[in-house]
Amino acid sequence: MKSIDNFKSVIDKYEIIFFDAFGVIKTYQGLVPGIEKTFAYLEQQNKEYYIVTNDASRSPAQLAESYHKKGLNAITADRVISSGMLTKEYLDLKVNDGIVAYLGTPESSHYIESSGLKTLPVSQIDSSNIDKVSAMIFLDDEGFDWCNDLNKTVNLLRKRTIPVIVANTDHAYPLSVNDVSIAIGGIASMIENIVGKKFIRFGKPDSQMFMFAYDLIREYRPVSKKQIVMVGDTLQTDILGGNKFGLDTVLVLSGNTLPGEAETRINATGIAPTYICENAVVQLDGLGF
Amino acid sequence: MKSIDNFKSVIDKYEIIFFDAFGVIKTYQGLVPGIEKTFAYLEQQNKEYYIVTNDASRSPAQLAESYHKKGLNAITADRVISSGMLTKEYLDLKVNDGIVAYLGTPESSHYIESSGLKTLPVSQIDSSNIDKVSAMIFLDDEGFDWCNDLNKTVNLLRKRTIPVIVANTDHAYPLSVNDVSIAIGGIASMIENIVGKKFIRFGKPDSQMFMFAYDLIREYRPVSKKQIVMVGDTLQTDILGGNKFGLDTVLVLSGNTLPGEAETRINATGIAPTYICENAVVQLDGLGF
Amino acid sequence: MKSIDNFKSVIDKYEIIFFDAFGVIKTYQGLVPGIEKTFAYLEQQNKEYYIVTNDASRSPAQLAESYHKKGLNAITADRVISSGMLTKEYLDLKVNDGIVAYLGTPESSHYIESSGLKTLPVSQIDSSNIDKVSAMIFLDDEGFDWCNDLNKTVNLLRKRTIPVIVANTDHAYPLSVNDVSIAIGGIASMIENIVGKKFIRFGKPDSQMFMFAYDLIREYRPVSKKQIVMVGDTLQTDILGGNKFGLDTVLVLSGNTLPGEAETRINATGIAPTYICENAVVQLDGLGF
Amino acid sequence: MKSIDNFKSVIDKYEIIFFDAFGVIKTYQGLVPGIEKTFAYLEQQNKEYYIVTNDASRSPAQLAESYHKKGLNAITADRVISSGMLTKEYLDLKVNDGIVAYLGTPESSHYIESSGLKTLPVSQIDSSNIDKVSAMIFLDDEGFDWCNDLNKTVNLLRKRTIPVIVANTDHAYPLSVNDVSIAIGGIASMIENIVGKKFIRFGKPDSQMFMFAYDLIREYRPVSKKQIVMVGDTLQTDILGGNKFGLDTVLVLSGNTLPGEAETRINATGIAPTYICENAVVQLDGLGF
Repeated sequence: MKSIDNFKSVIDKYEIIFFDAFGVIKTYQGLVPGIEKTFAYLEQQNKEYYIVTNDASRSPAQLAESYHKKGLNAITADRVISSGMLTKEYLDLKVNDGIVAYLGTPESSHYIESSGLKTLPVSQIDSSNIDKVSAMIFLDDEGFDWCNDLNKTVNLLRKRTIPVIVANTDHAYPLSVNDVSIAIGGIASMIENIVGKKFIRFGKPDSQMFMFAYDLIREYRPVSKKQIVMVGDTLQTDILGGNKFGLDTVLVLSGNTLPGEAETRINATGIAPTYICENAVVQLDGLGF
Repeated sequence: MKSIDNFKSVIDKYEIIFFDAFGVIKTYQGLVPGIEKTFAYLEQQNKEYYIVTNDASRSPAQLAESYHKKGLNAITADRVISSGMLTKEYLDLKVNDGIVAYLGTPESSHYIESSGLKTLPVSQIDSSNIDKVSAMIFLDDEGFDWCNDLNKTVNLLRKRTIPVIVANTDHAYPLSVNDVSIAIGGIASMIENIVGKKFIRFGKPDSQMFMFAYDLIREYRPVSKKQIVMVGDTLQTDILGGNKFGLDTVLVLSGNTLPGEAETRINATGIAPTYICENAVVQLDGLGF
Repeated sequence: MKSIDNFKSVIDKYEIIFFDAFGVIKTYQGLVPGIEKTFAYLEQQNKEYYIVTNDASRSPAQLAESYHKKGLNAITADRVISSGMLTKEYLDLKVNDGIVAYLGTPESSHYIESSGLKTLPVSQIDSSNIDKVSAMIFLDDEGFDWCNDLNKTVNLLRKRTIPVIVANTDHAYPLSVNDVSIAIGGIASMIENIVGKKFIRFGKPDSQMFMFAYDLIREYRPVSKKQIVMVGDTLQTDILGGNKFGLDTVLVLSGNTLPGEAETRINATGIAPTYICENAVVQLDGLGF
Repeated sequence: MKSIDNFKSVIDKYEIIFFDAFGVIKTYQGLVPGIEKTFAYLEQQNKEYYIVTNDASRSPAQLAESYHKKGLNAITADRVISSGMLTKEYLDLKVNDGIVAYLGTPESSHYIESSGLKTLPVSQIDSSNIDKVSAMIFLDDEGFDWCNDLNKTVNLLRKRTIPVIVANTDHAYPLSVNDVSIAIGGIASMIENIVGKKFIRFGKPDSQMFMFAYDLIREYRPVSKKQIVMVGDTLQTDILGGNKFGLDTVLVLSGNTLPGEAETRINATGIAPTYICENAVVQLDGLGF
């Protein structure tokens, strides 16, 4: 059986740490207890760290602010790599004008607006503007009427051959210890199946997510993939994606994968992390570090 | 190239005709023009006919009544075989007591109630009755709040291991010449994918639908599959299902499959009807039949 | 937790017993020890029984003979319902002339030959006879050269729009306690995916398999689904199929589903048997029955 | 309807051209007639070009040599980006010692060997070395006995939890104008389905393929994605992958996508290239360029 590793010993071997957000740094109850010690240690050791998250509901600045409100000031906007940022990059590169129709809250769409592009909720698409729609984006499961706007989306995509971006690959997300909520990625798969067209998905385990983070770092310093470790709670996204990109990986047991089932799931799926740790909390001794 | 057959010549070879409803007898605009002549001819020739339909939104009596309102009195309740009837048979055989939770309109649930079983919309399931839920049924895409009730359904099915019936296998249905609507079968597939459990589907192309019709006939007379022909507008449901059950099949070009694309689609899917006809209308000459 | 039921007490409640073969009556090591007592008890009690098996590699007579060689004489050819019988029925009803190309052993093809039809292994299809091929059948994973004949099958199915029957839905089957073998159902799925056409599959969990057995019984006596119980070792085929057809079901723990994992798998898949028994052996006391 | 663009006018807008190999530069009949003019033009204009190919059957040097033998000397080993190179990078980063089992020819495995790693065909894996196998690679559809070695691979992967790499994502490849051959990607999908584990795939449309090429260029010069165009004949790999990575794309009609069906397929799949050209041949006038 694979043994449980000490998280501090693991990250001591790497220069740069990528963290998944949900199940690693926070849960539906708030911050993972003690997680602030991890970031204090990383700062003290001059190690770099990034949050790599399948979240397109808010901008990096808004995501960072949500950590500050919980008392974790170490996570600043430039530390956040989200699937929303890949969506924005795609629009900047490939969609030059027209209307970007979206499903999500107004805040989720704000961030991806740019010169030449106007975002409009699906509810406001009608015969007067449908021909100007140049892309469709699935951003968040909130902010729209499911029955009306999902049916409207199906018919928009039957009529127009335009790029369709799914900015969150998750099919569900946890709401409480017992309940989950359908995520926009699950809704997008239903509609993709109905219209029979191929959507573009940004988010772990897709490599483009890791590449985006890797490129951001390389803009100001040289780095090798061997110096980076990915820390996550989900085999199918964090660990599979990290492995495929060539990174070492740490599975933590504080979220999606419970301590009693980790080994069974690793053997069943064939997705093996480099290390398994109880959680991502650095346990510091009494004498400083 | 496959030639177009004369519908009257085709049905003259069989004793019993199975008809799909939508795209064959009616469209979103009402009855297919001239279809009443087909049923007059069948009555005159003493041929039997049945409507075999993936529709669980209403009882056979209500479905028959909807034809009467359109002026087609030939279709009586005992001529209608619906996926709702299979759902009712399943509950009668396999679920003996408790609450059947459902998504759909109140009318869709009425028909399947029986002694010992109470139906309750998902919206009314709560902590006081969740342990009494003994089955979950997807009946219709109307009659509930999509956002609230779909999320509630996901969490009900994560907590309870109960049979889940999808009484309509279609993923979308036509609303007008240009627009479709998401069907309850498409919604059910999204939820099945999220909860990771196996749902039971009733409806064409599944053989059980054809078997149910076949059994109804055999209750009062002997019959061979060679005496029956299935008439439908959709390769993936009517024709595939009819073929697999061992029936001869007629593809009509008045619905889902357009005249210009029939041959391409048959070759692409490998689903070949025995005959292709323009529509299911019997063209009668001036001298009676 | 679901408790373990006594197999004798369970079958005492029914008039007709359907048995899966592999994992229930026999394993790769031979007969399940003591299984002859079960059939002696059934004979003594005048209960009917049938073997319902996804096996198209041999005729019912040959399958029965294989039990006789192992010392189990209770299973006669008229007690065997196989997916090969459904394949034969399909050809009798729907394919009237020409060549039926097949993958499998010569013995597997013999049984399905009938007047007007000639079977030919894929290896013998060439430009002189390809236009006479009127159906393609996947029968067994043995009896042909995988590399040559699978590639030949792909190209045959790209050129001809003909019905394709998969007479065994399993993707793998056990060879020994540690090893499995790829089954013809797995190979057929690969080819279906490559040619993009829709194949027809006969075998559990599909209802048509159960219907065929049910119809055989009804030819000589009236019967209700409530009088039949299906006994199997596999949730996804025996139990799911039996449940959907409206039968009560018994999961035995002598094959595919191990004692320690039954409950986890039932909750994970949502496929629940009516009963769980250790195995299908009737334990008789010393005083006769 | 989308108009046909002049290939020379298109590439004049970009600094770097990525070419798919099969269907663009060569077909089963040899080089695309006139394609040498394209590379002469690119050299004369000082534009960079790369071959981005889902081919792991040979090393870049061997792939380049195969073009030289056909008379196209412009394609040198450093111009070739193959899915085999990603496989090699993965092994270098993530697998440090042990045996890499493979399906393919001996040549296909040579290239990926490196210090600390030994490659061994699946046929030579036995009880004496199975515990040392640290990865499994699907390289090519030739060089092994399909029946024996595919069954052996299934059992190897049931026993060992190791990374599994599929170095070619294609399911079939063209052999002649009428025939195709099953590719190793199709075989790998069958085995992945049977063992239920998650394999890692390298090859278009996956972004990692494009990223690898992009990174090679950036090692010696700065470049923006806007300066690169991807030229391919297949919507699902070349065009989808190029689009997703943020590149402009050219669909050529000299391979997988025929002139008469391009528009239908684009509308059906929703995968739209930036340009459509008849082929990738630069038509030069008589006066030089």
